[in-house]
Amino acid sequence: MGYRILETDDIPGYLRDRGHWDDVDDIHVREVSDGNMNRVFLARSTDGSRSLAVKQALPWVRVAGPSWPMSPDRADAEARAYAQIAEVAPDKIPAILGYNPENHALVMEDMSDLEVLRTLLNEGASYGPHTSARIGELVAQLSFTTSDFGMPSADRKALIAASVSPELCKITEDVVLSEPYLTHEHNHWLPELDDLAAEFRADAALRTEVADLRHTFMTSAQALLHGDLHTGSVMVGTREGAPVVRVFDPEFSFVGPIGYDLGLYWANALVSEERARALGTLADHADQLRLSWDGFETEFRRLWPTRVDTFFDDAYLDRFLRRVWTDAVGYAGTEIVRRIIGFAHLTDLTTLPAPAPASRRALLLGRELILRREELSTADHIRALV
Amino acid sequence: MGYRILETDDIPGYLRDRGHWDDVDDIHVREVSDGNMNRVFLARSTDGSRSLAVKQALPWVRVAGPSWPMSPDRADAEARAYAQIAEVAPDKIPAILGYNPENHALVMEDMSDLEVLRTLLNEGASYGPHTSARIGELVAQLSFTTSDFGMPSADRKALIAASVSPELCKITEDVVLSEPYLTHEHNHWLPELDDLAAEFRADAALRTEVADLRHTFMTSAQALLHGDLHTGSVMVGTREGAPVVRVFDPEFSFVGPIGYDLGLYWANALVSEERARALGTLADHADQLRLSWDGFETEFRRLWPTRVDTFFDDAYLDRFLRRVWTDAVGYAGTEIVRRIIGFAHLTDLTTLPAPAPASRRALLLGRELILRREELSTADHIRALV
Repeated sequence: MGYRILETDDIPGYLRDRGHWDDVDDIHVREVSDGNMNRVFLARSTDGSRSLAVKQALPWVRVAGPSWPMSPDRADAEARAYAQIAEVAPDKIPAILGYNPENHALVMEDMSDLEVLRTLLNEGASYGPHTSARIGELVAQLSFTTSDFGMPSADRKALIAASVSPELCKITEDVVLSEPYLTHEHNHWLPELDDLAAEFRADAALRTEVADLRHTFMTSAQALLHGDLHTGSVMVGTREGAPVVRVFDPEFSFVGPIGYDLGLYWANALVSEERARALGTLADHADQLRLSWDGFETEFRRLWPTRVDTFFDDAYLDRFLRRVWTDAVGYAGTEIVRRIIGFAHLTDLTTLPAPAPASRRALLLGRELILRREELSTADHIRALV
Repeated sequence: MGYRILETDDIPGYLRDRGHWDDVDDIHVREVSDGNMNRVFLARSTDGSRSLAVKQALPWVRVAGPSWPMSPDRADAEARAYAQIAEVAPDKIPAILGYNPENHALVMEDMSDLEVLRTLLNEGASYGPHTSARIGELVAQLSFTTSDFGMPSADRKALIAASVSPELCKITEDVVLSEPYLTHEHNHWLPELDDLAAEFRADAALRTEVADLRHTFMTSAQALLHGDLHTGSVMVGTREGAPVVRVFDPEFSFVGPIGYDLGLYWANALVSEERARALGTLADHADQLRLSWDGFETEFRRLWPTRVDTFFDDAYLDRFLRRVWTDAVGYAGTEIVRRIIGFAHLTDLTTLPAPAPASRRALLLGRELILRREELSTADHIRALV
């Protein structure tokens, strides 16, 4: 029957036809679309004992409308990433109950009892001891098992071919990894940052380092990434007394450099820290880079003895992890910069009563992370910069 | 009608049916299969005014027979590489008149008037001033136009997906980039080299560097490579008074690190030099690494202003070329080593009256190239080692 855009009234029939829910008269649906790209519906039974979410990719960017077309195939990448993560870290993503590639629609766990990490942080919450460690573990579990260490060479080649994502990678290549350093209509910034924005555009050394990170993003097929691992892609909460961390929205997933996922998360953690500093609500913000790296490294090293290719020895692992670290520091810098003088800014900073000083601090930090990533070889080095 | 193995008597009908040649009674065919993998037939008219070659991939390794099965899909990779090179360097490959993916058969220019470079060198010839420069240019033309510099990002992703080559990459990953450093039934060597073979297997630092080059081979999707660019994949000669250089057999083609193609050629040039030194026939051997690099770099820099992505600036080009150089030095080392203590050896050395001294020199040089590739930053540094 081909692709059709699902409306609220279509959802009960859709859930019945796809075999998820028999009693259509007991399904109550509301739209809860929140992200920029897709539509999300929540379906609940009358007594609230049962609920599901339906997420559909539209053939355009949701918040822009049909004037910004974008292939709904991005939902295929999302479904593929969820399937891959479900094999190794099912506790860190929403349960996926079905994917219909014809309609580009995922039926998944209702997470409306959880909160988006960025929202909580913006409201003054701390991270707590679990969140960043779980994020680091997730990156290790996904990346190890889809790297040449965890996956046989021929399967890896098939994964690389199946996971190319030209349209969404192009967005990152442009919006994150070049535009902020050029004169571009997408860019905007606070007037108080005019001087720095101009300095960044004129900084030849910075441009070369960003070009290097950009080329690595384009060519380094290390492992399957989430691809957009910011604090708005993480939900946290408590279920039955236990902390819950769920990473979602992996539609930017592709096979790329592992440091990109870590760097994105670090950038968002560092910006959340600037917000907290500005508001006088600093809590455990300063620990998050270290906690997520430790979670990543510990899990990667725990998985290492299970590698399928033992030509890679322990000495090589040490070297490889150092490279991932260095890449992550650089990508953290690019993510901070683009969120302040690029296209899409962060509510962490934009909702501050006086956003300029914190934005300036973050911007300067971002530049140092890019330029000095080789020498910033530990979390303490980065703390010393902050 | 599906795949069928072509025999000598099938060729005239095949050429007629595929539209290459009408007068089947005037076609005289002989089999000239020479490489390890495939069958090659030459078809000529009675008066010799017209000739063609037909190359077919068998579903196994030709010299081994059906006991070593191998997908004939490798011919698809070869045809794809030829098509790509034909767009940018048609003068450096045989003319391809047709490819039939069903039969995995290429119809191509008859090159029987040319000679394989390795054969000529083994017979005591010099390289002459053109050959290595043309090889370097070819690598630049193919790699630039299939890199993120020469090809739009989305086209590149499609190329990467279309060009994965699990079976043939696995051969390189195993035979070139791991087995020689392990105890493996494939390995063999001259008894006089027992000490070095054991040393190489026990050398932890060497193993780590080879692991690094191996992981780069597996993950660094810089550009479409030839994939097997040794002196046996090059034909040279003269036509109408002008020198002719033709690179052939790109069946190992895939999107990988550019330095791999250069490194393979350098290894073979350095080994040919050891042969010539042993026989007292040294001519222009010592110039070939420099000539091929200069050909590569000059052509890559000539193409640079045509790049589709101008975020990559001149300073980044310098850095990128240094990395290609360093990779090439390392891969040259691995290629030398595997050709002396690995699976498939080189006639350059095996046909020497006393192969051990030259093999020992080459093996020691190979190790230095791997271990010291970062500091061996010019052709002169490498000459000093030789």
